[in-house]
Amino acid sequence: MSFTMICRGSLLLLLLTGLVSADPAKRLSDERPNFIIMLMDDMGYGDLGVMGEPNRETPNLDQMARDGVLYPEFYTGAAICSPSRAAMLTGRLPVRNGFYSTNNFGHNAYTPQEIVGGISDDEILLPELLKKAGYTTALVGKWHLGHRPQYHPMDHGFDTWFGAPNCHFGPYDDKETPNIPVYRDRNMMGRYFEDFQIDRKSGESNYTRLLADEAVSFLQSQVNASAPFFLLWTPDASHAPHYASKEFLGKSRRGLYGDAMMELDHSVGRILNALRDNNMTNTLVFFSSDNGAALVDKGHGGSNGRLLCGKQTTFEGGFRVPTIAWWPGQAAPGTVSHQVGTQMDLFTTFTQLAGQPIPDDRVVDGIDLTENLRDGSITDRSVFFYRGDLLMAARVGHYKSHIWTFTTPPEELGNGTDHCPGMSIANLTTPEQINRTDTPVVIDLSRDPGEMYQLPTYTDEYQTEVNKMYKVITDHVTDMVKGRPALDWCDQAVMNWSPSGCEALNDCLTPPKSDPYRCYWPH
Amino acid sequence: MSFTMICRGSLLLLLLTGLVSADPAKRLSDERPNFIIMLMDDMGYGDLGVMGEPNRETPNLDQMARDGVLYPEFYTGAAICSPSRAAMLTGRLPVRNGFYSTNNFGHNAYTPQEIVGGISDDEILLPELLKKAGYTTALVGKWHLGHRPQYHPMDHGFDTWFGAPNCHFGPYDDKETPNIPVYRDRNMMGRYFEDFQIDRKSGESNYTRLLADEAVSFLQSQVNASAPFFLLWTPDASHAPHYASKEFLGKSRRGLYGDAMMELDHSVGRILNALRDNNMTNTLVFFSSDNGAALVDKGHGGSNGRLLCGKQTTFEGGFRVPTIAWWPGQAAPGTVSHQVGTQMDLFTTFTQLAGQPIPDDRVVDGIDLTENLRDGSITDRSVFFYRGDLLMAARVGHYKSHIWTFTTPPEELGNGTDHCPGMSIANLTTPEQINRTDTPVVIDLSRDPGEMYQLPTYTDEYQTEVNKMYKVITDHVTDMVKGRPALDWCDQAVMNWSPSGCEALNDCLTPPKSDPYRCYWPH
Repeated sequence: MSFTMICRGSLLLLLLTGLVSADPAKRLSDERPNFIIMLMDDMGYGDLGVMGEPNRETPNLDQMARDGVLYPEFYTGAAICSPSRAAMLTGRLPVRNGFYSTNNFGHNAYTPQEIVGGISDDEILLPELLKKAGYTTALVGKWHLGHRPQYHPMDHGFDTWFGAPNCHFGPYDDKETPNIPVYRDRNMMGRYFEDFQIDRKSGESNYTRLLADEAVSFLQSQVNASAPFFLLWTPDASHAPHYASKEFLGKSRRGLYGDAMMELDHSVGRILNALRDNNMTNTLVFFSSDNGAALVDKGHGGSNGRLLCGKQTTFEGGFRVPTIAWWPGQAAPGTVSHQVGTQMDLFTTFTQLAGQPIPDDRVVDGIDLTENLRDGSITDRSVFFYRGDLLMAARVGHYKSHIWTFTTPPEELGNGTDHCPGMSIANLTTPEQINRTDTPVVIDLSRDPGEMYQLPTYTDEYQTEVNKMYKVITDHVTDMVKGRPALDWCDQAVMNWSPSGCEALNDCLTPPKSDPYRCYWPH
Repeated sequence: MSFTMICRGSLLLLLLTGLVSADPAKRLSDERPNFIIMLMDDMGYGDLGVMGEPNRETPNLDQMARDGVLYPEFYTGAAICSPSRAAMLTGRLPVRNGFYSTNNFGHNAYTPQEIVGGISDDEILLPELLKKAGYTTALVGKWHLGHRPQYHPMDHGFDTWFGAPNCHFGPYDDKETPNIPVYRDRNMMGRYFEDFQIDRKSGESNYTRLLADEAVSFLQSQVNASAPFFLLWTPDASHAPHYASKEFLGKSRRGLYGDAMMELDHSVGRILNALRDNNMTNTLVFFSSDNGAALVDKGHGGSNGRLLCGKQTTFEGGFRVPTIAWWPGQAAPGTVSHQVGTQMDLFTTFTQLAGQPIPDDRVVDGIDLTENLRDGSITDRSVFFYRGDLLMAARVGHYKSHIWTFTTPPEELGNGTDHCPGMSIANLTTPEQINRTDTPVVIDLSRDPGEMYQLPTYTDEYQTEVNKMYKVITDHVTDMVKGRPALDWCDQAVMNWSPSGCEALNDCLTPPKSDPYRCYWPH
C-alpha cells in the first residue's frame, strides 16, 4: 500500500467518522498521530490496580485504562530485557534480529556492559522508519540494545536521548568495573551512583523524576512543531535495585517496589496531562513492560498476578505484560480488547500509521493493530515463546502448547535463584530442560491463564489443539532465517570505561587489555 | 448507645453534610438505609474484572466498584460455606456460634442434607435484629444454616424466603438420596433436577434468572413501603455443578463457570438498576463471596488470582474474598479501602445503622464499618483463621502468622482432591497438620498477598511480629467460649425426604429408619 493511499484513506476515515478534532493547535498539514511508548522495566502483569494488585498504587494507569484500551492478552517478544526491547523496536523476534546467544543451549542472554555486541546495522528500527516519515524521535530512559558507540540510539533512529545504555547495577569501584553512564544525546553526563545517585540503603533517587521531567520537556518542545513525534520513555525504577524519589519513599504499602510503582504511575499521569494541557491528544500512547516481574527478587519485586513463574521463563508470567493503549477520539474509552497482541505490533502499527511501508525484505512478526484500536476488530495470530533461539512454546488461538519446559537449572536454584518460587506443576515447571515435542503440555489460557491445569492427553480437544500447533510451528520454523547471534561474546575491555564525553567530565577510565570470551548465560 | 441517640446523631450528620437526598420517594418517617447482601458461592478473589480476571466478564460489578467502595482486604468468617454464612449472619466466628465439628481434628464441616444440626436458637441473627428494628427481611437463594424445620430461615428472622436449604448437588434417585427442595417461605415448591432443572450435560438452568427475578420483585414490592428492608441474595451458580441460562451459555471465554459469572454479574446489574429506577438508592449494598474459589474444580471453577490455595484452607485463597460496597450519596464513588474487613462486620454495621443495640451478652467479632464507608477512616483489627475449632493463623496489622499449617490430607490428594494445586511453599503448604506455634510462619501480606515469601526467623521484624501475634492470640483465646458443636451428627433419616409442603405436590418420600452417626469430615 502506498503512502498516498494510506494518507488518503486515513483522512477519509477521519472525515467520515467525524473524528477530526476541533483542537485549535492541531497540525493542519499533518493528521498523523504522535506516538509514545511507555515501557516499564520488570513490571509484572499483576502490578497495576486495574490488573488486581490489592494495594492499588496506580490511579493514573487505572484511569488511563478507563480512558483507553486494556489488553489483558498482550505479550513481549522475550522474557528478558534486551531481546524484548530489540523485538519491539525491530518488529521481529529476537531469533531473527540476533538478540540471543548460542553459548548455552536454550538460555536467555542480554546486554550487560561486558557484552561486545548490540543491535545490528542490518536491522531496521521503528525510530528509523518514523524519522524517515518525518517524525521527530526521542528516547528518554534505558536503551539496552548495546552500549558501544556503534550501537548508540542516536545511530539507530533517535534524534535525542537522555538515559543509560545498561541496567543501573552498582555501585562499582570504577576499577574492576565502571559505573554505568547516563547520556544526553552523544555524550555522557555522568554516572549512576556518582552523578546520578541511587542510595542503595534508603532506595532514594530522583532519577524517575528526571526522566519524567525530560519526557514532559520533550513534549513541550513539540507543541508548535510541524512534524509529529515519537517518544520512547523507558524508566527503570521497577528493575532491581528499585528506587524512588524522597516524595514517594515509604508511601506505598509494599516497600520500595511499591514506592517506585507509585512514582512511575504519577509520572504516567504527568505525561498524559502534558498531552492534554498542550492540546496534543492526537497521540497514540502504549503503556507496557519489557517482561514479567522478576520473582527472584523474593517478594521485593513485582507481581505477575495469577500467571505462572516470572521473568526469564516462557510461562505466562515471563511473557504476558500489563498493556494499555490511549488514543483519545480514536480508541473508544473503557475498552477491554481480547486481541492477542505483542510489542512487535507497535512497530507495524506505528509504521503504518506514519504512512511508511513495512519492510518487505524480511519477516516482520508484528501485526497492525490500527483497526483493533479503532473498531475493536480482532486478528487471529499466534505467539511464539523462545528462550535464546530455542522455541519452547506456542500460543495458537487460546491454547498454549509447551514443547520444551524449563524453569531454573539446579545450580541456580542452589544459589537461591528461582524463577518459579512456590510453583510446582507436574510436567511443566521442570528445572531441567525437557523436550516434550512428542507429547506437548497443552493449556487452555482462557480458562486457565495460570497454566495450572493441563488438557488430558486422551481427549479430542488435546489432539485437535496439538495438531493445529504442530502445523503452526511447522509454518513458523521451516523457513526461519535466524539472525547472527549478537550476544555470544563478552570482553571486560568493552565496558563503559570511557564513554564519549568522558573527557569533558574528567571521567575517562582505563580499560583492561581486550580479552574476548564467550559469555556465560546461567538460565 | 441508645436508639434515640443514634437516630439523632444520624439525622444531624445528614443535615450537616447536606446528604439528605431530594428523592421524592424517600420515606419521610424513616431515613435508615435499606440493606442488601449479595453473597456469591465459591466465587474467588480473582474472578472479577476489577480484581484482574483477564476475561473481564463482570462489567456491572466493575462499575459497582467504580460507583462504590472496593475492599481488597476483606475476609469471610470461614473458608467453607455453612460456617461462613453462619458467621456473617451472627457476627460471630463459627467457633463461637457452633458451626463446626469436633469429629475430625481441625477439619472443616458444613451442612450436607444428612446433617442433624443447624443454627442454634441461642444465636441472634442479623435478620432477627433488623426485623426487631422494623425492617422487612427477605432471603432469596441458598440458606445453608440447617435444613430441618427448626432451622428454617423463616424461624430465624426472615419474613420471606425463596430458595434451597442445601447445595444443589445431584441429581439423586430419590431412593437412596432425595433431591434438594426449593422453598417459597415455609413450603417446598419442588426439587432441583425435577422441578428446577439443571442440565448436568449442557449446564443449562434458568435458576439464576429466577433468583434475580425474585430479588427484583421483592424490591418492587418495597417501593411504597413505610419500613426499610433487608435483602439477602445468595445465588449458587458459581458453586459446582455450575450452570447458566441459555442466554449466557457459551458466552464467556472460560466455559460454564465464566458463563455463570456473566449471568451473576448481569443479575447484579439488574438489582442495582431496580434500586436506581425506583428511587431506592438509600440502600447500602454489599457484594461478597462465601469463601474462596474451589480449586478442586480443576480449572472449571473460579480463580483466587494470586492468592495461595483455595476454599477449605486458611491461606488467603480460602478466606480473602472479592468485596464491594455501594451506597450512593454516603460512600464516595471510586474508593478503594484498605480497611481489613470481615463479613461479620456486616452484622455489626447493619445493626448499628438500623438503630439496634449490638447484643452485649456475647462476643461479637464484627466491627462497625459505617465511618469507614462514610469517610474512609480505618479501624485496626485482627483476623482469625480457623479450621473447625482449631485456630490456624492470625492476621495482625498487615502480617499473617501461621501457627498450624494444613492443605489437603494425603488420602484426599490420592482421590484427586487438591486445595492447593500447583502450589508448594516450604513450611506452609503441608498435607499434614503441623503445629508451628513455636516457630510460626510469618508473611507480610502487603508485600506478599500470595504468601510466597516467609519472613526469615532471624530478623527483628519476625520477632516483633511473632510477639505481637502471640499477644493478640492470647487475648483472643484465653476467654474463648466455644459454641456447642452443631455439625457433629449425621443421619440419613434427616435428609430432605418430606419437606413441609411435599403433600400438596405429592412429593413426600419415605425416610429410612433413624440411625445417627458421627459425620466424617475429610479435610
